[in-house]
Amino acid sequence: MPYTKADSQLHQIFEAYKQRTIKRVFFVACGGSSALMYPSKYFLDCESKHITAEVFSSNEFIHRNPQSLNEHSLVILCSHKGKTPETTEAAKFAKSKGALTVSLMYVEHAPLADESDFIVNYSWISAGHMEPHPEIMNYAILYKLSMGLLYIKEGNRKYEKLLSSLDNLGGVFEKVMKQHEEQVKAYAEQYKDEKIIYTMASGANYGMAYSFAICILMEMQWIHSHAIHAGEFFHGPFEILDKDVPFILLMGLDETRPLEERALAFLEQYGEKRIVIDAKTFDLTGIDEEVKGYLAPLVINFVLRMLALALSKARNHPLETRRYMFKVPY
Amino acid sequence: MPYTKADSQLHQIFEAYKQRTIKRVFFVACGGSSALMYPSKYFLDCESKHITAEVFSSNEFIHRNPQSLNEHSLVILCSHKGKTPETTEAAKFAKSKGALTVSLMYVEHAPLADESDFIVNYSWISAGHMEPHPEIMNYAILYKLSMGLLYIKEGNRKYEKLLSSLDNLGGVFEKVMKQHEEQVKAYAEQYKDEKIIYTMASGANYGMAYSFAICILMEMQWIHSHAIHAGEFFHGPFEILDKDVPFILLMGLDETRPLEERALAFLEQYGEKRIVIDAKTFDLTGIDEEVKGYLAPLVINFVLRMLALALSKARNHPLETRRYMFKVPY
Repeated sequence: MPYTKADSQLHQIFEAYKQRTIKRVFFVACGGSSALMYPSKYFLDCESKHITAEVFSSNEFIHRNPQSLNEHSLVILCSHKGKTPETTEAAKFAKSKGALTVSLMYVEHAPLADESDFIVNYSWISAGHMEPHPEIMNYAILYKLSMGLLYIKEGNRKYEKLLSSLDNLGGVFEKVMKQHEEQVKAYAEQYKDEKIIYTMASGANYGMAYSFAICILMEMQWIHSHAIHAGEFFHGPFEILDKDVPFILLMGLDETRPLEERALAFLEQYGEKRIVIDAKTFDLTGIDEEVKGYLAPLVINFVLRMLALALSKARNHPLETRRYMFKVPY
Repeated sequence: MPYTKADSQLHQIFEAYKQRTIKRVFFVACGGSSALMYPSKYFLDCESKHITAEVFSSNEFIHRNPQSLNEHSLVILCSHKGKTPETTEAAKFAKSKGALTVSLMYVEHAPLADESDFIVNYSWISAGHMEPHPEIMNYAILYKLSMGLLYIKEGNRKYEKLLSSLDNLGGVFEKVMKQHEEQVKAYAEQYKDEKIIYTMASGANYGMAYSFAICILMEMQWIHSHAIHAGEFFHGPFEILDKDVPFILLMGLDETRPLEERALAFLEQYGEKRIVIDAKTFDLTGIDEEVKGYLAPLVINFVLRMLALALSKARNHPLETRRYMFKVPY
């Protein structure tokens, strides 16, 4: 892989990691940018002996004002165009507490960059297209930041496995795209008139379910939705299930897969409308066994973005249509 | 206040607190019992300098298998009847990692008790009735456990304010009941035919929104729902809002109130169906200023339980009706 701008930005951040004690990571962003961070929190929860991780929506972070935020904190923020006011404010707030602040954005210059110690620019491409640089897409950068942290601080070797696997992610995406091309169109036709569609997942995949529910279904398609945790499903939400209630179930390869399998069995028995995106059906050649659970959500998300596009076409409701966002004051 | 059984159980737990270093608290439960714990996590996030807190659904906790779970962890669990299999399993798992395990339950003997170092029995009464012992209701016990922890470990004095305030909580409930008696019936009549009702809140109140969505609306009334975080609302979910989409907005008194106020302004401008439960309208005489933000959600929840009962009556759908829970294998 050629040495990219993002690599050079990451190199500087890793040097900064080495120069301070880091006890706690705060992942801070809003909406879809926040959902991006769930897999990295999952990784830190699972593997870090000494560093704890937390995900907060930007404004909640500022107002909750965690006392554990200090010079031993790493705050990772993200805003696609670097202009989300709450996130810029959160970076400023975190810096005022002495934390190391690292912000991801697609653009090169933005208010968020001005308030951050370091930035990383990620690559991005709209739904339904191939990702030309999956190794520097937003999720990949976030894993590099979190796995890189544990590599430096705790000698965790997943970072090396991540790097070699990311080199092969483009190939995986290509195969998954071919595999699902017809399938997502069929799903879109089948579910285009639904008024409500729930999403469900657990572990590293939950963020994908959250993102699809709030950004794709609610925001971009005006379909009622919300993400249900596959474990919580059995403690309340499952009573809503009937033959005519559609669910999108994500099934990953991480340690929590048994929760998703249990949910699947129930959906199969009592529901009739479901879309199951199962990472077990993917050809993941080139992805190291040890990071498959962590990378599966990125591949699942690739399929979800194909589904989003197919749904928007079947419904004649472009993904760009908004009634409030960036249109009215709020 | 008479010295209760719960007080004696708490006394033993506080002695155990003194005998070990506690770096991290895991709140572990399922569904409604998990939602109970959000306010205590909020308190620890806001006020603890050294102790971090995390809420996990029981099965997610076991499978995620956090590396930071060890002999310096306090794991607080809850199950009303002490028979939730995932939670019992989680207690066993936490003990095997050397953590101090404390379990709340309504019943005296249960599988969960057998797997825990300590238990606390809370008082409980069904929706729409007065709470005869609010100072030992589940939320109060959880605050005693978390505020007591910071009292012992960091000299945080909120615990003292909590105790004196809890003595007056019954009086607050009585006044709030009278204040809302007619209002909840009117709301129930107005919204009884809705197919979907969202809930929304932030900070210490978010757990109440989550609980009402998954336990009352989805589980007990079979109404589509989910809890939206008031900050996240503006980053996707708000696009679903239209004049005919009902929201229940909870407004508390904690530091995140500006988020709820911003959501209210938007709901008022673009929606027409909303139930607002605002703690600012409550007579909180006897509740110490310093813990009002923490105790407001308990009072909000009292109103929500009145609303649940009113809704169930208006819809002729008893709160006890289930199609799957405890009826079919899952």
